[in-house]
Amino acid sequence: MSTAPLIGSVIIGQSGGPSAVINASAYGVIKTALDDPNITKVYGARHGIKGVLADQLMIMDEEDPAELERLLYTPSSALGSCRYKIADPDVDDTDYKRILEIFQKYNVRYFFYNGGNDSMDTCNKISKYMKRVGYDCRVMGVPKTIDNDLAGTDHCPGFASAAKYIATSFMEVSRDCHVYDTGVITIVECMGRHAGWLTAAAALAGLAGDGPDLIYLPERDFDMDAFIADVKRIYAQKKNCIVAVSEGVHYADGTFVSEAKVSGTDGFGHAQLGGLAARLADVVKAATGAKVRPIELSLLQRCAAHCASGTDIAEAFMAGKTAVEAALAGETDKMVGFHCTRDENGYKCEPKLFDLSLVANTEQKVPLSWINEAGNGVTQDFIDYCLPLIQGETGMVKENGLPRFVQLKMVFAE
Amino acid sequence: MSTAPLIGSVIIGQSGGPSAVINASAYGVIKTALDDPNITKVYGARHGIKGVLADQLMIMDEEDPAELERLLYTPSSALGSCRYKIADPDVDDTDYKRILEIFQKYNVRYFFYNGGNDSMDTCNKISKYMKRVGYDCRVMGVPKTIDNDLAGTDHCPGFASAAKYIATSFMEVSRDCHVYDTGVITIVECMGRHAGWLTAAAALAGLAGDGPDLIYLPERDFDMDAFIADVKRIYAQKKNCIVAVSEGVHYADGTFVSEAKVSGTDGFGHAQLGGLAARLADVVKAATGAKVRPIELSLLQRCAAHCASGTDIAEAFMAGKTAVEAALAGETDKMVGFHCTRDENGYKCEPKLFDLSLVANTEQKVPLSWINEAGNGVTQDFIDYCLPLIQGETGMVKENGLPRFVQLKMVFAE
Repeated sequence: MSTAPLIGSVIIGQSGGPSAVINASAYGVIKTALDDPNITKVYGARHGIKGVLADQLMIMDEEDPAELERLLYTPSSALGSCRYKIADPDVDDTDYKRILEIFQKYNVRYFFYNGGNDSMDTCNKISKYMKRVGYDCRVMGVPKTIDNDLAGTDHCPGFASAAKYIATSFMEVSRDCHVYDTGVITIVECMGRHAGWLTAAAALAGLAGDGPDLIYLPERDFDMDAFIADVKRIYAQKKNCIVAVSEGVHYADGTFVSEAKVSGTDGFGHAQLGGLAARLADVVKAATGAKVRPIELSLLQRCAAHCASGTDIAEAFMAGKTAVEAALAGETDKMVGFHCTRDENGYKCEPKLFDLSLVANTEQKVPLSWINEAGNGVTQDFIDYCLPLIQGETGMVKENGLPRFVQLKMVFAE
Repeated sequence: MSTAPLIGSVIIGQSGGPSAVINASAYGVIKTALDDPNITKVYGARHGIKGVLADQLMIMDEEDPAELERLLYTPSSALGSCRYKIADPDVDDTDYKRILEIFQKYNVRYFFYNGGNDSMDTCNKISKYMKRVGYDCRVMGVPKTIDNDLAGTDHCPGFASAAKYIATSFMEVSRDCHVYDTGVITIVECMGRHAGWLTAAAALAGLAGDGPDLIYLPERDFDMDAFIADVKRIYAQKKNCIVAVSEGVHYADGTFVSEAKVSGTDGFGHAQLGGLAARLADVVKAATGAKVRPIELSLLQRCAAHCASGTDIAEAFMAGKTAVEAALAGETDKMVGFHCTRDENGYKCEPKLFDLSLVANTEQKVPLSWINEAGNGVTQDFIDYCLPLIQGETGMVKENGLPRFVQLKMVFAE
C-alpha cells in the first residue's frame, strides 16, 4: 500500500444527529485539505452520503476562507446530514456502484465521513468496497456524537459541549428551583438512549453545590419503586429534589420507561403523551403530592454552540485535521479517536487511529463501576474523566448580540 | 416631606419568579446602600416579605464585597423569593403591624422590594400603611420580570436576558431542524401567560435567517384552524416549519389552549398531559402526518445567566442603584423604571420614577399594531424595540469551565 499522497479531490460528508462542534471537525478536514497541494478540489456532500448518490457536491474552494472559519462556532451540520443506512454490498451494491461512479467523475481520492456509529459503518463499507474493486481512495471516519458512545476513543467530539451545556443548565435550574421555601421536585430529562454519558454530566453541576440530588442512567435497570423512594427521601430531607434522568432508562425487562404500559402507580391508566420527564413527574406527583416540574432539555442540549467547550472545539478540529493528514500519509479505513491522559501533569489529548471495523456498530457505555451502588448517582471517576473536557469557552463572534453562524454560498459542482 | 436622608437601615427583599438579572438589581441596592454613610445596616429579607414577617434578615454588611459582586452574574433570587400576597390592610392589618414591629426593631428607614406586578402591589400597600401610621420609611419598588409586563416603564430588567436566550436558542434549534432533507415541524413554547413579549423575542433570530416561521402571542385570540393552515402552508413550501408559541395563547372565549377540553382534532379525545407545545404537536401531527417535535423552553429561559444580556445586567444594576439614590433624596412610594430613546443616535436608557399606585396590578402587553395582520408574526417595530436590549455579554467568571455563582454566608440578624 502506497504511503505517498494521492493526487485528487476530497469529499467530506456529515451524517447522523448534529452536535455543537461537528462543523469544527468538518472545518478541520476542509481547511487542511484546502491547504494541501496534493488535493485538487474539496467537495462537501449535501446531506451526507445522499449528496454523493445524488451528485450534490458543494465546492468548498469557492467559499470565503474567513466565512468558512465560522464553522468552528456554528452548531448542527452545515453541509446537511442524513440518516441513510447503506446496504450490505453483498446483498445490494447499487449504492456502491453509484458512489464509485461519482468518485471517478470527480477524481475523488479521499473520502471523509463525519458522524457517529452508523456513519463509521458506512465509512467501513465504502472503504472495503473501493478496495475490492481496486479504486484507490482513502476513507477516514471523523467521529461525532453527543452520546459519547463510540468505542475505542477516550471520548467523542460533541459530547463535551453538550455536557458543559447540561451542567451549566443544571446549575441555573437548581438556583431557580431553590428560590422558594414552599418545596418543589424537578425532573430533568437528558438525551442518551443507550448510554448515560450526557445525564451523568449533570453531576458536574454538583462541584459548585448546584447539582442534581439523583441521577439515573440507562446502564442500570430502572426500578420505579426505588426511584419513588429516593425522591421521597430527598424531598423529606430538603423540601426540594432535582433529578437527572436519561431518556433511555428502562425496566429490567428492557422496556423503556418512556414507552412502558402504564401501571396503577401513575394514577391515569392510559397511554401518556410527552416525554419521560412528564411521565415521571406524574408518577412522582401522585406519590408525593408535591409540586413537580418536568423539564426536557431536548434539542437545546445538542446544538447549544453558544455554550460550547473550547476544548471540544479544538479537539473536534484536530480530529478533522488529523484525518486528512493521516490519509495523505497513506492511512485508510480508520477512524480518528483520542488517547487521553489525566494525571498530576493535567489533561493531555492526542489523536489516535482506530480500525473502522472495530468501531462500527459497537457502543461504549458508562462503566458500571462509575455508577454508585444505589444506582442513583455517579462516582468521582466520572467527574475526573469529564471535567477536563468541558474547559474553555467558544470563540464565537456575535453580531447584534446574537451568534454569527456560518453562511455558506453553496456553489454546487456541475 | 423631608428630602434629607434618613439615618437608619435598609431592607431589600426579592419576590416572584426569578430572572437572570434580579440579583444584579439587588446588588445595585445593596452596594449603593453599603457605600452610603446615612445607612447604618443593610439587611436582605430571606424569601421576600415572608422573611420580614419571620424576622429572618441576612446582614449584607457581613458578606465579602468581592463575593457580593457575583450577584451581577448569578441567576434566580439569591436572597430567596416568595409568592406571598399581602392582605388589604383595611381588611386585615396583622401583617402590617408585624412589618412595622420589625422595621422599628431594626430602625429600618428604607425598604426596597425587587419583583413584578404583585411585588409592586405589596410595596404600594406597605408604603401607604407606614405613611398612615406615621412611621418614616421610604419604600421603593425595583422592577423585575422576564414577562416584561410592568406598566409605565419602557421595559423590565430580566426581559432582555430571557429574550437573548430565546433568540439564541431559536437560532441554534433552527440550524438543528434544517439539517435533514426529510422534513420536520418544530413547535417551541415560550413563557408568557398574558403578554407575548418573550415569544415575540424569537423573531430576533430571524435577523440572521434562523428565525421561526410563525409566531403566536396571547395578545391575539388563537384560532386552531388558522394555525393548522399556517403550518401546512409553510411546510408545503419549505418541508420545514418552526413555530414560536406563547404558553398563554387562548381561544376567543378566553380558554387557554393548553387547558382546553380536547376536540376531535387532536385525535385522542381525552385530557392530555404535558405543556402546550406537546398538545399542539399532537394536533399538527394528526393534521399533517409530518414528524413534529415539541420543545418547551421551561425554566431554562428565565435563569440562563450564562447567556444574559450585558445591557440588561447594567440596567438591572442601575435600577437598584437609582432606587437607593432616589430614596436617600426623599422619594418614596415609587418604582424605578426606564425611559428609553431609539433614534439615529442609537439607544439611550435613563432611569425614571413611576408612582407605585400606577404600576401595581396592571399589565403591559405587546401593542396589537406590532403584530402582523394574520396574527402569526411581529412587525419591525418590535425588532427595533427589542434589539438594543439584548446587546452585550455577561461578565460572568467561570471556574472549572462552569459559572461561578455567588455563595452568600447568610449571617442572620439576632
